[in-house]
Amino acid sequence: MRKITIGNYLLERLSEIGIKDIFGVPGDFNLGFLDDIIKNEDLNWIGCTNELNASYSVDGYARVNGIGAILTTYGVGELSAVNGIAGSYSEDVPVIHIVGTPKREYFKRHMILHHSLGTSDSFGAYKKIYENITSLTVWLDAKNAINQINNAIKYAVFYKKPVYIMIPQDVASFEIMADSDLLSFASGFDLEEHKEIIEDVKNKINNSNQAVIISGHKVIRYGLKSDLEKFVNRNGINVVTTGFGKGSVDETNELYLGVYSGLKTPDAAIAKIIDTADLVLIIGNKFTDLTSSFFQLNFNKDNVVEISDTHVKYDNKIFTNHSFGFLVKMLANDTNINYKGLSVLENRVAVEFNPTEEKITYNRLQVALNNYFVEKDILVSDVGTCTFLSQYIQLKKDMKFIMQPLWASIGFSFPASIGAQIASNSKVVNILGDGAFNMVFNELITVINKQIPITTILLNNNGYTIEKVIHGDGKPYNELPKVNYSQLIKAFDPEGEKSISLRVTNEIELQEALVISRSSDKFVFIEVCLEQNDIPEALKGFFNK
Amino acid sequence: MRKITIGNYLLERLSEIGIKDIFGVPGDFNLGFLDDIIKNEDLNWIGCTNELNASYSVDGYARVNGIGAILTTYGVGELSAVNGIAGSYSEDVPVIHIVGTPKREYFKRHMILHHSLGTSDSFGAYKKIYENITSLTVWLDAKNAINQINNAIKYAVFYKKPVYIMIPQDVASFEIMADSDLLSFASGFDLEEHKEIIEDVKNKINNSNQAVIISGHKVIRYGLKSDLEKFVNRNGINVVTTGFGKGSVDETNELYLGVYSGLKTPDAAIAKIIDTADLVLIIGNKFTDLTSSFFQLNFNKDNVVEISDTHVKYDNKIFTNHSFGFLVKMLANDTNINYKGLSVLENRVAVEFNPTEEKITYNRLQVALNNYFVEKDILVSDVGTCTFLSQYIQLKKDMKFIMQPLWASIGFSFPASIGAQIASNSKVVNILGDGAFNMVFNELITVINKQIPITTILLNNNGYTIEKVIHGDGKPYNELPKVNYSQLIKAFDPEGEKSISLRVTNEIELQEALVISRSSDKFVFIEVCLEQNDIPEALKGFFNK
Ligand SMILES: Cc1ncc(C[n+]2csc(CCOP(=O)(O)OP(=O)(O)O)c2C)c(N)n1
Ligand SMILES: Cc1ncc(C[n+]2csc(CCOP(=O)(O)OP(=O)(O)O)c2C)c(N)n1
Repeated sequence: MRKITIGNYLLERLSEIGIKDIFGVPGDFNLGFLDDIIKNEDLNWIGCTNELNASYSVDGYARVNGIGAILTTYGVGELSAVNGIAGSYSEDVPVIHIVGTPKREYFKRHMILHHSLGTSDSFGAYKKIYENITSLTVWLDAKNAINQINNAIKYAVFYKKPVYIMIPQDVASFEIMADSDLLSFASGFDLEEHKEIIEDVKNKINNSNQAVIISGHKVIRYGLKSDLEKFVNRNGINVVTTGFGKGSVDETNELYLGVYSGLKTPDAAIAKIIDTADLVLIIGNKFTDLTSSFFQLNFNKDNVVEISDTHVKYDNKIFTNHSFGFLVKMLANDTNINYKGLSVLENRVAVEFNPTEEKITYNRLQVALNNYFVEKDILVSDVGTCTFLSQYIQLKKDMKFIMQPLWASIGFSFPASIGAQIASNSKVVNILGDGAFNMVFNELITVINKQIPITTILLNNNGYTIEKVIHGDGKPYNELPKVNYSQLIKAFDPEGEKSISLRVTNEIELQEALVISRSSDKFVFIEVCLEQNDIPEALKGFFNK
Repeated sequence: MRKITIGNYLLERLSEIGIKDIFGVPGDFNLGFLDDIIKNEDLNWIGCTNELNASYSVDGYARVNGIGAILTTYGVGELSAVNGIAGSYSEDVPVIHIVGTPKREYFKRHMILHHSLGTSDSFGAYKKIYENITSLTVWLDAKNAINQINNAIKYAVFYKKPVYIMIPQDVASFEIMADSDLLSFASGFDLEEHKEIIEDVKNKINNSNQAVIISGHKVIRYGLKSDLEKFVNRNGINVVTTGFGKGSVDETNELYLGVYSGLKTPDAAIAKIIDTADLVLIIGNKFTDLTSSFFQLNFNKDNVVEISDTHVKYDNKIFTNHSFGFLVKMLANDTNINYKGLSVLENRVAVEFNPTEEKITYNRLQVALNNYFVEKDILVSDVGTCTFLSQYIQLKKDMKFIMQPLWASIGFSFPASIGAQIASNSKVVNILGDGAFNMVFNELITVINKQIPITTILLNNNGYTIEKVIHGDGKPYNELPKVNYSQLIKAFDPEGEKSISLRVTNEIELQEALVISRSSDKFVFIEVCLEQNDIPEALKGFFNK
């Protein structure tokens, strides 16, 4: 037993689960706790420009690191982050949101404090708001803090969802006696269920003439990428990912076919293999409108085995007492599975990019990027027209892919790239539209001053292009004014020492910029000028339902 | 009876209550409704850079116009605006938040749509979130839409709080038969209660030797400024405002004493008059920590008569069935009130600003601004160090003052100025710190491209100065990197045709910049360079409790 403040106890737990950086914005109700953070040698404070951007950054961090933490202030701070945390909830990203709140005595004295709704119990309203977008909310209490903190962390880890911890100023500095035990993440599951599932799946695979695996985002969230790969390779079963699951499979694996998007999968051969399969193993995936051509899925539903964290489902059976991770590992290691059906081997011939003086199009940009990436890079894509390019880029070995195909909040990708870079130290390339960038470009301050060496590729077409495709082409509400983005960068780096800013209009310039990005350890900003009406091949007809 | 779509019916009602401009951001679930807006000749669409900024803008608009409307898209859009709408709730600003949602059939089909939390009933979660920060939430329904719309508008008008209206795509375009009747705002109240209150107040005033009025923000919200003035002038009773109520009284009136902030009121003579009064009439005010020196109010609580919208309270009586507006008007028109007590007449001698070559300080800036303003100007202040300057600036006749002393969300003032300018066409001057501006400067795009002729005075001290005053002076988390703000403006106005950007370091430059601002009809940006440790007189010692 040793003496420790509750604030420091929380920080120790964050370190224990692998958090090294805390994102956020100061506010008078969290300043004391911030002192603990900056004194802590295992943790870095990443001050962001505003709370929405901080919540996007920590999401990107958590997608790479497995978990992340953000600190905001009572009311104004936490409520600015609602959209970002909701995105983490929607896409199953565990983020610990810590909110510095006023001393408890102020509430008991019924004081109308700043950042309140004009009542002395506003914290109740904020907590209720967060109940909708987290798996657990707690208001720390001196007596019960150890238990509350440990419980919240487990909720984040087990459910891969955000949690919300309110830490009153006086609780943060309150000293308690605590053990030095480690958190236990023993999980409850029913081994009999596992055996039954494995037996059934084995029989299905062994009797299948053509099986295929559709891999989803939860394979990434639960850290099962290598287990799934073992399963694929040992049995020689073809695998695809959805746009949501992109990055869950090594895309250089010969058994990997590509991204499957339902009826409108750009490579029709992929859709055909899935539609004709007699066994479709869907692992850790959720079909959403934009990753399924609006639920136009033509495979035979009777042939489906769905294995995920919340349930396993096939024939008329549904199981809910399993461990997703354990089950996938058991499948991967089962030597009795003996698939004798068909499989296709992909021999990916990279299309070379031979730049010309032609204007840049989405399709050519895709070719250029396919040639750009190398192992371990991270591609962070926004949602918009670029989605229909980036999800079809071939990932090199150990590359990661970050996008929000479900939550689809534009602007997300730029701050998320900061988080992804800090978590990985990899080359992070961020691709987004001008509408998206305009929402969040304040975060240039952080990128440039903290010298985050990401590359941002801004696809400038002076408008909300994807919206025009959906509705309102030619309407004023989908037009965007011109911004001189090179000047914008200069505002934060007047001497041009900390960043490289390039504006490219033809393929040769594009190629030159990509070469610079590859070798630079600075922030590289590439503005790609596109024609207003150019769109990627994969987007054509996508919204014609 | 005539045929009209529900979307257009809603727009007609917005026009009827005086809304001329709708702020927001497009999204695929609101694009059809947006077509109705841009086709509508009585309404302008003000597309903003992001939803938080849109929610700040509409709040500024509603504070001037009496009411405002904002349109966002399902999930990502609406949840980005939570902090702004919560601010409107906290500070009693009626804002109608309209959210474009997916077609109703999608929910019934249990589809996992983009912008959902990964469930088909996510709209329920968003509605629940908004229940905490609005007076009413409705999900429009073809059958009941007329009733729902009218009801929501009345909630906004009666309670001076935001309301939340979800309009599914198919409901917006659904045709109904509707009357052409106008909304009725008849309000229920108990005339007997009014008579009793008036009688009691009259007796108290007639027997008082020294009465004083403390006027609050609700006098502004309920449009009672001229009624209160009539009451003050007819009876010769002194009046002060709080920081929250600043702008509710003509500050050139001789009976007006100044801003009262409790124990630490900069002008101690004002606090003394209130502390010694034998009758303190508090009208439409709420004491909050930052406007009351943390509730250090030394007037005699037994002498208080509190008159507000939610209650009237004095001696042991509490009334709740009155109409605030009607009651203030009755008091103003009562010729039987006959105050014979003391009153002080203020003869404000304006201190001239004679600029020198000295560096600019907060205190000198205050003198300069006191000389800058003229009738009908609007001053929009952020919260931070500038609060302790701006709330003590003397407002000229018919000037308006906008600030968030209670919600205190930094960055608010810049987008709010856009709204205030659009609502008024007045000279709007916005004053804020660099930390605040960094949160929201994307909205420069809107200011410059829509040519909103506000003047923004950026107080640049490279840090979160007010936080340093509270806690953490010298700590890295309170430092901000340098930004070249003139370059920043250039990014949006490379030719310098649409804006004037000035950086001032001494008093003479400041004065020159203010002269330019006065005569310009462009966006004028004045960066005032301040010493890191300079603070206004009124802030010194304020946080030493
Ligand atoms: C926070 C947020 N607000 C609004 C939307 C609605 N929306 C979806 S796509 C889009 C336009 C994207 O424009 P841009 O980033 O320029 O990409 P483009 O398709 O033009 O390349 C908008 C506004 C959204 N998804 N997220
Ligand atoms: C949205 C939001 N986030 C965080 C805070 C906490 N906060 C209060 S004052 C302040 C610093 C203000 O700095 P600046 O705008 O530069 O003003 P200064 O006092 O330095 O003049 C911060 C971060 C807040 N009030 N609102």
